[in-house]
Amino acid sequence: MTSPERLARAYLLRVAEPPAPALLTFVAEHGPVGAAEAVRRGEVPEAVLQETSARREIDLAERDLAGAREAGARLVIPEDDEWPAWPLLSLDVATGRGAEGVAAPLALWVRGAARLDEAADEAVAIVGARAASEYGQHVSSELGYALAEHGVAVFSGAAYGIDGAAHRGAVIAGGVTVAVLGCALDAGYPAGHVGLYDRIARRGAVVSEYPPGTPPARHRFLVRNRLIAGLTAGTVVVEAGARSGARNTAATAGALGKVVMAVPGPIGSAMSVGCHRLIRDAHATLVASAADVLETVGRLGTGDAPQPRSPRRRTDGLGPQALRVHEALGERRGKSPEGIAAESGVPLPRVRALLPALELDGLSERCETGWRRARTPPPRS
Amino acid sequence: MTSPERLARAYLLRVAEPPAPALLTFVAEHGPVGAAEAVRRGEVPEAVLQETSARREIDLAERDLAGAREAGARLVIPEDDEWPAWPLLSLDVATGRGAEGVAAPLALWVRGAARLDEAADEAVAIVGARAASEYGQHVSSELGYALAEHGVAVFSGAAYGIDGAAHRGAVIAGGVTVAVLGCALDAGYPAGHVGLYDRIARRGAVVSEYPPGTPPARHRFLVRNRLIAGLTAGTVVVEAGARSGARNTAATAGALGKVVMAVPGPIGSAMSVGCHRLIRDAHATLVASAADVLETVGRLGTGDAPQPRSPRRRTDGLGPQALRVHEALGERRGKSPEGIAAESGVPLPRVRALLPALELDGLSERCETGWRRARTPPPRS
Repeated sequence: MTSPERLARAYLLRVAEPPAPALLTFVAEHGPVGAAEAVRRGEVPEAVLQETSARREIDLAERDLAGAREAGARLVIPEDDEWPAWPLLSLDVATGRGAEGVAAPLALWVRGAARLDEAADEAVAIVGARAASEYGQHVSSELGYALAEHGVAVFSGAAYGIDGAAHRGAVIAGGVTVAVLGCALDAGYPAGHVGLYDRIARRGAVVSEYPPGTPPARHRFLVRNRLIAGLTAGTVVVEAGARSGARNTAATAGALGKVVMAVPGPIGSAMSVGCHRLIRDAHATLVASAADVLETVGRLGTGDAPQPRSPRRRTDGLGPQALRVHEALGERRGKSPEGIAAESGVPLPRVRALLPALELDGLSERCETGWRRARTPPPRS
Repeated sequence: MTSPERLARAYLLRVAEPPAPALLTFVAEHGPVGAAEAVRRGEVPEAVLQETSARREIDLAERDLAGAREAGARLVIPEDDEWPAWPLLSLDVATGRGAEGVAAPLALWVRGAARLDEAADEAVAIVGARAASEYGQHVSSELGYALAEHGVAVFSGAAYGIDGAAHRGAVIAGGVTVAVLGCALDAGYPAGHVGLYDRIARRGAVVSEYPPGTPPARHRFLVRNRLIAGLTAGTVVVEAGARSGARNTAATAGALGKVVMAVPGPIGSAMSVGCHRLIRDAHATLVASAADVLETVGRLGTGDAPQPRSPRRRTDGLGPQALRVHEALGERRGKSPEGIAAESGVPLPRVRALLPALELDGLSERCETGWRRARTPPPRS
C-alpha cells in the first residue's frame, strides 16, 4: 500500500520543475496531501501557481511509483527515516536567507543499496569538467578511492570526465558513492555511464528529483548541483575550465556554508584554470591529497589520516652560531678553534664551547689536527 | 679617493658575519667610521663584541675595495644615492619588532650596470628549488621573461634550477635581473652560473654582502634570503620540496610584510609540495601567470596586464524561466507553446511572452510547426 504522502509527492515532483520554493513552503504549511489536492484544483497562491500551472493536470504518480519499483528504485520522502534531513537543512536555511534557486527537493528518486541518510552522514562531493585531462581523471579516481577507503561517501554528478572517475575510484575501493543526476533515473544519460550506474547502485545510490522519462537539460544540471552541494560536507573541484558547471557547484556549496576545495594543477593546463581561480579569487582551500580533504572537512584527529611529516636534517635543532660553527668544520682535515672562529665569525670562546656540544650531538669529532665533522653519524632515535 | 665611510664599512663587512643587528645599531649610533675604530680596539658593548671579536683584527678593506674595482664591482653603502633605503626599511622595522636574524646589511658589494635603488623600485623575487622539474624551470623562465618585459626587476638567488631559470628568462627579455648571492662575488659559485653572472651584470646586477673570497655555506643562503625578500615587493615561489630554502625566503618575506606568492603544480610532483603547503597553510597567494603576479603586488590597473576574460555563452543574460524555455525548444522541428510549457514546467502565459523575447535576442524563431531554436545566430555586438 503506497502512503498518500508518497503518492502526493510523486505527483508534485512531476508537476513542478525544481527548484520550487513557493510549492515547498506551501507543502510545509498544508502537508503534501492537502497541498497536492489544492495544486490539482489550481486553488493555490499566485507564486505556487507559477510553479505548477503548466503541468498540474498531469498525474502519473501511481504509474511513476510502479515503474520505479519495477526498476528497483524507490521514492524517498521527508516522511521516511531515510530522508537526509540534516544535510538538506542547509538548503532550507539558504532559502530562508533569500538565496534564489536553492530550495530543498520535495522528494528523491533513489536506486541502490545505500541508505541516503547514512551516505550523506560523512560525505564529500568530487566534481569537475567533462573534458578532463588525463591528470584530472587520475587525481579524481585516486581521491575517490582514498576517501571511500576512509569511509567517506563520494557524491558526484555522474558526468563523463572528473565525475565518472570519482565514482569509479570509490567503486573500486568497495566504498559508497552516490550519483546525483540532472535527468530521470531511467533517462540512460550519459549513455556510456549506464553500466556504471549499476556498479554504483550495488553499495551506493543513484539519485534524482526528476520523474521517469525526464531528459537531461543544462538548467537541470545547474539545479541538480545544489543537491550535490547540499548533501555533502564539502565539495572538491578537481578540474574546471574558465567556465564550468563544477564552479557553479562550488559557488553553491559556498553559499550553503559548506567547505569549498580545489585541486591545483599545471598552470599551463586550461582544465586547471577554474580551480586556480577558485583558490585565488574565491578562497577555496587548496587540497593536494585525500588527507588534505579529510583535514579540511574536519575529520582529522581521528588518527586514520596521518599527515606527511617534513623530513628532518640532523642539524635542525642547532642555533645560528652552532650552525655556523658546524658549517665551518671540514669533512676530512681538522681545523683549530681559532681557524673555525675566523671562518664562522663566531667568537672564539663560543667556538670552544660549541665544539664539544656538537660532539655530543654526533656532529663533530676531534682528530690530530683539530676538529672536523663527525664521519659516522649515530642513528637518531 | 675612497671615502672613510666606505673604508669603514668594507672593514666591518669582513669582520662581522651577517646579520649583525648589534653592530648595525652601534653603527647607527656612532657612524661607520667611529664604529669601525671602536670595533678595531675592541672597545664596544658585549653584544657588538660577540659579533665582531672573532675577526676584528683582520683589516683588508683597502685590498677588498681595490680588488672589487679591478673586477668591475663596487661597494654600495647607505651613504650613497644608490642605496635602496626604502625597500630595506622593512628589515629595520622587522629588527625593531624583535624579529631575529633580519638586520639590514651594512653595505653591499655590487657588480653590474643597474642602479640598485632603481632595480629595487619595482621588483619581484622568483625563487625555488635547485632540483626543479622541467615544468618548474619552464614556468620560472616564462615568469622571469614576462615580468622583465613589463619593466619589473626580477630578483633571485642565482642557484641552479628555479633561480637560474628566472634570471635567464629576464635576461632573454632584455630586462633587469638581480642575483643576490650567499657567497662572495668572486666565489665562482655555482660553477655553472659564472657565465650567467656576466649576462646578468650587463643590464642588471650581482649583489652580495660577503667580502671577496667568502665561500658559500648553508647558513649564508638563509641569511641572504632576507635580502631577496627585503629588496622586493613580493616573493614568488615557483617550486619547492617539503623542505626548501625557498620556503624560508617566503616565510621571511611574510615576516617583513611583503607579498608571498606560490605557483601551483601537479599534486603528484614532489617539487610542488612546498608551494601547495604555502598556499594551503600559510595563505600564500596562488599565482598562475605574470598577470596574477602583477595584480597581487598591485601593479594592475596600469593597463599593461589585461586579465583574461571568461568566454560568454549567448544565453548568459537569460533568467531561469527563459533558459528553461530555450532548452525546451527543438533544434529543427517547431513545438507549440503548450508543448514547451509542459516540457519546461514554465506557465503557458510566460512561455507565450518569452518566445518572442527570445526571438528578439536571436535565440528562437517561428516556423510552420511552431517555435524552434534560431538557426543562424546574428553576430553579437
